[in-house]
Amino acid sequence: MSISCTRNFFERFCVEEYNIDTIKHSSFLSADLLPSLGARINQSTKLRKHIISPFNPKYRAWEMWLVFLVIYSAWICPFEFAFITYKKDALFIIDNIINGFFAIDIVLTFFVAYLDSHSYLLVDNPKKITIRYLSTWFAFDVCSTAPFQPLSLLFNYNGSELGFRILSMLRLWRLRRVSSLFARLEKDIRFNYFWIRCTKLISVTLFAVHCAGCFNYLIADRYPNPRKTWIGAVYPDFKETSLWNRYVTALYWSITTLTTTGYGDLHPENPREMLFDIFFMMFNLGLTAYLIGNMTNLVVHWTSRTRSFRDTVRAASEFASRNQLPHDIQDQMLSHICLKFKTEGLKQQETLNNLPKAIRSSIANYLFFPIVQNIYLFQGVSRDFLFQLVSDIDAEYFPPKEDIILQNEAPTDLYILVSGSVNFIAHVDGQDQIQGKAVVGDMFGEIGVLCYRPQPFTVKTTELSQILRISRT
Amino acid sequence: MSISCTRNFFERFCVEEYNIDTIKHSSFLSADLLPSLGARINQSTKLRKHIISPFNPKYRAWEMWLVFLVIYSAWICPFEFAFITYKKDALFIIDNIINGFFAIDIVLTFFVAYLDSHSYLLVDNPKKITIRYLSTWFAFDVCSTAPFQPLSLLFNYNGSELGFRILSMLRLWRLRRVSSLFARLEKDIRFNYFWIRCTKLISVTLFAVHCAGCFNYLIADRYPNPRKTWIGAVYPDFKETSLWNRYVTALYWSITTLTTTGYGDLHPENPREMLFDIFFMMFNLGLTAYLIGNMTNLVVHWTSRTRSFRDTVRAASEFASRNQLPHDIQDQMLSHICLKFKTEGLKQQETLNNLPKAIRSSIANYLFFPIVQNIYLFQGVSRDFLFQLVSDIDAEYFPPKEDIILQNEAPTDLYILVSGSVNFIAHVDGQDQIQGKAVVGDMFGEIGVLCYRPQPFTVKTTELSQILRISRT
Amino acid sequence: MSISCTRNFFERFCVEEYNIDTIKHSSFLSADLLPSLGARINQSTKLRKHIISPFNPKYRAWEMWLVFLVIYSAWICPFEFAFITYKKDALFIIDNIINGFFAIDIVLTFFVAYLDSHSYLLVDNPKKITIRYLSTWFAFDVCSTAPFQPLSLLFNYNGSELGFRILSMLRLWRLRRVSSLFARLEKDIRFNYFWIRCTKLISVTLFAVHCAGCFNYLIADRYPNPRKTWIGAVYPDFKETSLWNRYVTALYWSITTLTTTGYGDLHPENPREMLFDIFFMMFNLGLTAYLIGNMTNLVVHWTSRTRSFRDTVRAASEFASRNQLPHDIQDQMLSHICLKFKTEGLKQQETLNNLPKAIRSSIANYLFFPIVQNIYLFQGVSRDFLFQLVSDIDAEYFPPKEDIILQNEAPTDLYILVSGSVNFIAHVDGQDQIQGKAVVGDMFGEIGVLCYRPQPFTVKTTELSQILRISRT
Amino acid sequence: MSISCTRNFFERFCVEEYNIDTIKHSSFLSADLLPSLGARINQSTKLRKHIISPFNPKYRAWEMWLVFLVIYSAWICPFEFAFITYKKDALFIIDNIINGFFAIDIVLTFFVAYLDSHSYLLVDNPKKITIRYLSTWFAFDVCSTAPFQPLSLLFNYNGSELGFRILSMLRLWRLRRVSSLFARLEKDIRFNYFWIRCTKLISVTLFAVHCAGCFNYLIADRYPNPRKTWIGAVYPDFKETSLWNRYVTALYWSITTLTTTGYGDLHPENPREMLFDIFFMMFNLGLTAYLIGNMTNLVVHWTSRTRSFRDTVRAASEFASRNQLPHDIQDQMLSHICLKFKTEGLKQQETLNNLPKAIRSSIANYLFFPIVQNIYLFQGVSRDFLFQLVSDIDAEYFPPKEDIILQNEAPTDLYILVSGSVNFIAHVDGQDQIQGKAVVGDMFGEIGVLCYRPQPFTVKTTELSQILRISRT
Repeated sequence: MSISCTRNFFERFCVEEYNIDTIKHSSFLSADLLPSLGARINQSTKLRKHIISPFNPKYRAWEMWLVFLVIYSAWICPFEFAFITYKKDALFIIDNIINGFFAIDIVLTFFVAYLDSHSYLLVDNPKKITIRYLSTWFAFDVCSTAPFQPLSLLFNYNGSELGFRILSMLRLWRLRRVSSLFARLEKDIRFNYFWIRCTKLISVTLFAVHCAGCFNYLIADRYPNPRKTWIGAVYPDFKETSLWNRYVTALYWSITTLTTTGYGDLHPENPREMLFDIFFMMFNLGLTAYLIGNMTNLVVHWTSRTRSFRDTVRAASEFASRNQLPHDIQDQMLSHICLKFKTEGLKQQETLNNLPKAIRSSIANYLFFPIVQNIYLFQGVSRDFLFQLVSDIDAEYFPPKEDIILQNEAPTDLYILVSGSVNFIAHVDGQDQIQGKAVVGDMFGEIGVLCYRPQPFTVKTTELSQILRISRT
Repeated sequence: MSISCTRNFFERFCVEEYNIDTIKHSSFLSADLLPSLGARINQSTKLRKHIISPFNPKYRAWEMWLVFLVIYSAWICPFEFAFITYKKDALFIIDNIINGFFAIDIVLTFFVAYLDSHSYLLVDNPKKITIRYLSTWFAFDVCSTAPFQPLSLLFNYNGSELGFRILSMLRLWRLRRVSSLFARLEKDIRFNYFWIRCTKLISVTLFAVHCAGCFNYLIADRYPNPRKTWIGAVYPDFKETSLWNRYVTALYWSITTLTTTGYGDLHPENPREMLFDIFFMMFNLGLTAYLIGNMTNLVVHWTSRTRSFRDTVRAASEFASRNQLPHDIQDQMLSHICLKFKTEGLKQQETLNNLPKAIRSSIANYLFFPIVQNIYLFQGVSRDFLFQLVSDIDAEYFPPKEDIILQNEAPTDLYILVSGSVNFIAHVDGQDQIQGKAVVGDMFGEIGVLCYRPQPFTVKTTELSQILRISRT
Repeated sequence: MSISCTRNFFERFCVEEYNIDTIKHSSFLSADLLPSLGARINQSTKLRKHIISPFNPKYRAWEMWLVFLVIYSAWICPFEFAFITYKKDALFIIDNIINGFFAIDIVLTFFVAYLDSHSYLLVDNPKKITIRYLSTWFAFDVCSTAPFQPLSLLFNYNGSELGFRILSMLRLWRLRRVSSLFARLEKDIRFNYFWIRCTKLISVTLFAVHCAGCFNYLIADRYPNPRKTWIGAVYPDFKETSLWNRYVTALYWSITTLTTTGYGDLHPENPREMLFDIFFMMFNLGLTAYLIGNMTNLVVHWTSRTRSFRDTVRAASEFASRNQLPHDIQDQMLSHICLKFKTEGLKQQETLNNLPKAIRSSIANYLFFPIVQNIYLFQGVSRDFLFQLVSDIDAEYFPPKEDIILQNEAPTDLYILVSGSVNFIAHVDGQDQIQGKAVVGDMFGEIGVLCYRPQPFTVKTTELSQILRISRT
Repeated sequence: MSISCTRNFFERFCVEEYNIDTIKHSSFLSADLLPSLGARINQSTKLRKHIISPFNPKYRAWEMWLVFLVIYSAWICPFEFAFITYKKDALFIIDNIINGFFAIDIVLTFFVAYLDSHSYLLVDNPKKITIRYLSTWFAFDVCSTAPFQPLSLLFNYNGSELGFRILSMLRLWRLRRVSSLFARLEKDIRFNYFWIRCTKLISVTLFAVHCAGCFNYLIADRYPNPRKTWIGAVYPDFKETSLWNRYVTALYWSITTLTTTGYGDLHPENPREMLFDIFFMMFNLGLTAYLIGNMTNLVVHWTSRTRSFRDTVRAASEFASRNQLPHDIQDQMLSHICLKFKTEGLKQQETLNNLPKAIRSSIANYLFFPIVQNIYLFQGVSRDFLFQLVSDIDAEYFPPKEDIILQNEAPTDLYILVSGSVNFIAHVDGQDQIQGKAVVGDMFGEIGVLCYRPQPFTVKTTELSQILRISRT
């Protein structure tokens, strides 16, 4: 239970962290739904009866279902607004079913616990939940769910009136769920940042294209003189063509303008359309700049690792060629750099150094204690001393044929071989002689360290080896 | 009084800092108005009689009012220049009232003290103020305020002549007030950098669109053959259409060109218009590049915190999974990283380290002295020693269930619990036994430090705790 | 043999490193061909009979030849698809010859060893090679090579049918070879990163333009009413014009849309074309943002060195002018900075510091041992001690007329002159007197260090000198 | 003479540094002209008779004059190529005069010393100069200067033939002088990097527009059917209109395409024009991306200082408000940060730390020795000791009302007041009493340091003060 509790706590932090960040950028988004960061959810905290945890897998599935409905709403809303002149039965029914789901969600929200942002505790007091919801999104949610069209039928109004259409646009308020989903996914390292970001940008672009197309069509549709409209100038009898053709034309106009291609075959013909176009183009300017800015950001981040690798290798080879180092040393340098880039991420070492001492000790203890325990030199040593020794150990990978110790070098460290194998080579009478071999679990360099003499051998790896280094204490 | 004086001083620096920066970028802007950085203004320095401080709240309100008038001028100037063929009475009167306000400001400036950029002192000597103003902006201000049109009426000229129109464009000189306002707001951390920057870019874009539209219309209006103009080719009788229609058409052309959409329904028809268009498009190329450059800059800055968080968490989890660390340690690592990102800004630690020692001591003293004073270990210790001890204290947050001290670890630090609670756990006979609890104000780790023995207990937080660490001295 | 083995190993790492990176970005690319990083390939590992090493120069030439064929295929595929209504004999034969080459490659692949990504060993077991190939790309390769058109002739089908055309588009699968080539070249420091990147971006752009042009033509060609197509509206009898004219027109339309110029002389006329255009413009938006992002990335990297140089020089000169330093010191500062930027890359020092101790010792030993050995002070000293001393030596360049030691300075280092020459200058009775000269191989500063007295002379370089510094041990 | 020699040397480095950099980026540019970096040129090295130094002010003036002529050539070359059908006398003469100047320069180059890139010495051996020039740019220079048109007149050819026109385009080779000028200016810190970069980008853009316009006109002019050309379709009798109108129309088309506005009123009408347009648009795509990339780079650099300031202030104020620090400390923190940003550039401290020890000592000695000499505490101390002491001194600015020493603080440093004034305040019986004052040249903090006691007073600045800090040695 204690582990699940920790996780739970961890989740709360992430949510909070996320909240802080979002609020800074835009006050629209709310993030009281799911924790981010890919924490393994295992919520076992007991809540009151009839109160649902926001981390409940079933509740999450329900939320994903709502997000799916929201996407449908976002598409159908402007479309109905512009193209559908009389309510078709099927659409009418589907709309109301969807409204029904959202109505259920409003009711449900009164039974969902929430995370208090100060105490990091799940609040399951029904009164507090109610007060919080009523004072925040309740009004908006109700407005975006209210079935204005059926209501209008009751009062014998004509459902296709502009007023009701505009009211039905309130359903777009539901989009906040999608934006909060994206904000959460961006923090979640289980997902690729690049694709999340791209999907978000593409969604925004598509939605902008769709909305602008629909709205522009509506303006043309309502204009008194159909021949003086952007679509009527080219297709004089556009109101008779199929819905599909009109929709594609509207989208085509919209995307031609958004990408600033501007063929000009369809263009505003009257001041009303010009005004709309002015605002749309201003918006496009911002959107394009935002897309490019994001793409640049992603490209820079993408290539930074390859860049850094290239720069390091270039620096090493420039140094080597300027100083005419022998090929032997040059190869060792390059293969060491390659190995380092492969085995270590860019920020790994830095991240570990910033952890508190106790965690670092736990890690070292877990990783190195069993190995060090079996070293003959440490047989009689007390557990406590070993425990302290282990905290100071560094692990490193060495590519094959790399020197670890040079003969006659000042002894500063003691090495333990964890994997791979090394040769002891002594330079005697101008020739390199292999004096011995160390296998996994062996220790070397201890003669120098203990007797305080220069290293008697050169130690060279023969294959990829992992080696622990204990500095002389 | 001393505090207000410090603040006053602080303001002056900011103004100066701001000046330096602006001058580098463009020599147009002047920044002798308000201090930046959101300093709480509390100007109490006595000035001579009849001399107003530039930090006087009333004078600032006056300046904001002038900025408002400037924005109106910036809009009406090109508009009158291009569209208004005969002076309408209302506009004529409004223009002259506004001119009146700016005339008052010119007179007022002779009574406003200024900040000397070398001594950082408010100069209230009327002679010096006069000399400084006369030698800098006075001539420009007078030219941009002089009522050329009323004067022309006196001499029986026709007010719609091109010469006078161009003279009235001098009023755009007033825009320097707006640009200096933006430069100041960018430095002011009370405002969101992103929105300031966006507003500035949008303002510049709108002003460019407005000016280009007006000027392009003027060229068409003046061209001998109205059918060979950009607007006349499409609307042959454009001079008879309403002012609103003509203005919207001009704006529409302007923004179509600026966003490079270029539908082509309105396009230059004669060399004069082509020439204007060439210059406008060159300008647009630069403006678009500038907009995108700024947006990229903002996006990169925006996402840098999320990025850094993601990279750190990814590095930690990669390390954990590669070394197959137990879940317990993994959770501690991740929750510690989350907490760190939440409690500390990116540059906070670095900023504090760069402060001089006396300030750092003051802060430590203010924050930790009352706590340390009550520790039983320090009961008999002299105030002076405690004072010095306090300077070396570090405060850190620990998430719940995190180990602070591991059993058998080498003792290096001594901890004081400020908030939260911790358990002492001893690993006896293969089982973890809770040996005790520490509450707020308790100290732990002291046995190890004082007796120089390995820590006898593991110390684990049970809730979010703030802990002070004193290194062994 | 051992060196070649190391290199071989090194190659493997690079391949692996490269794999990791590619997989992250897109799972399409495979990189089992050549090692990157410009390693001097000298593969001498013995493989089984009839098994070819992937690093075999002949095999690489074969691969380059295939890449060349792929480029041709990538161009001809969409072109045939759209423009060629009946199979011309020449093209038919060329296509099948190319297919033949790729068929040979499929067979060959069964005899090429591969690098195991876990053990970093070349696997030459024919069974394993077969299993691996069958389970990965085999199916795709066969599909992209199968001669559908000749097969169709066998069964008396008409080769120009749309179905077979689409099948022949499978040949584009071969493009993965090109993308894997680019991914490898980007890692290879023998090539300029900028040009590789540019070539890649231009290739992608050209291919997009070509494909879109061909596909758009096909839509027009197939549309029932040729006058209601993008090309037919302008050239009503376009089907009779020459192939060249039609291809240029298609390309022209394509690039006009891609660059968002959008003249509008050719534009979609029917919903089918509009739909295609919508997708193409969405793609263009992404591609343009990607191009700009890459260019920004390259420009930033390009200018970073000049930037850094400018900033450093500016910081130095600002400091000098603010403190009114004499010209003498100012010149020394600036020339030292210039020299440093010339002799050292940006990351060189950092790179060297990250190498393991043994490699650093090898380098120092190789570079400095012969020089130090000849110094009179170290004549009687043991080889071992010298060996350890050499590891601590720093080498630095000094521009002429720069002070290395100031008279009366605290002695901390001992210097050895490697190239150039220096003067000893003593300030006696208010005058600078040249007391001596040191030539290559001389040591100076030793009086101060050994006797622990302030330096008796100022030491000034007379020409560009390289100097070793040994800190007092 | 020695100073001028150093400078001379310094210049050479800069030239070399610049060479390295340029060669990497593009092999077109040569940089053997002037040194960069704004070195005060004072070339006094004696050269052989009749040999001119490249740093000779007169030679530089000559080069600037040639650059001016090159700009004219760059404009007139494509213009003549496209628009001038028969040689007008004035142009013909001017062209040949300009050719004459360049012919003189070719002769002159044989007498100009050059910098050897290995030895950094001016080579004034006429043979070496001749060999170097003949083997590098000589052939190109002769080709770009040869008066093909006058020659053609000799042989009775018609000067307007296409062949000779293309030959006259060789004159564009001269542009390498302009690009090398820009490369040099970018390194020169006397000029604003932003404006140099902008001018370069604008020049390239204008040249591209001009060339494309001229070339496109030539294609139309040569096309057999004038009505099927981009200009003929709109102005059927375009060959009769004035040169000015045709040139403006060509430029207008060119810039409409470059900015991707693409009105479409002028667009390619035949395959030849389409082909040209395809290449121009591909080029535009690259150029636009390059412009935006550069602008982003500049914007990021521009705003980095304001950014860094904002981030630091924000970090400080967040810390203060979270810990509810008293206003007193908060003000001290903020004003210290402001002052630091004002007095120090971003990289100043870092730059100084990278200088060698001797230069740092010289600077410290120059700045602080006179002050320290007059301190009463150091009256009897030897010059040598003071000299060493001075090297360890740090100077810092303190804003007014800032604490430098706190009462009871551990004494670690000793302070000397250079400018401003400070108060000694003792906290006695719960009240702050001013115990004394220090004026310029006084020392404080010495009681604590010498007697090793806690500081007896708080020391607070009363105005902006510069203070030297000597750490306890």
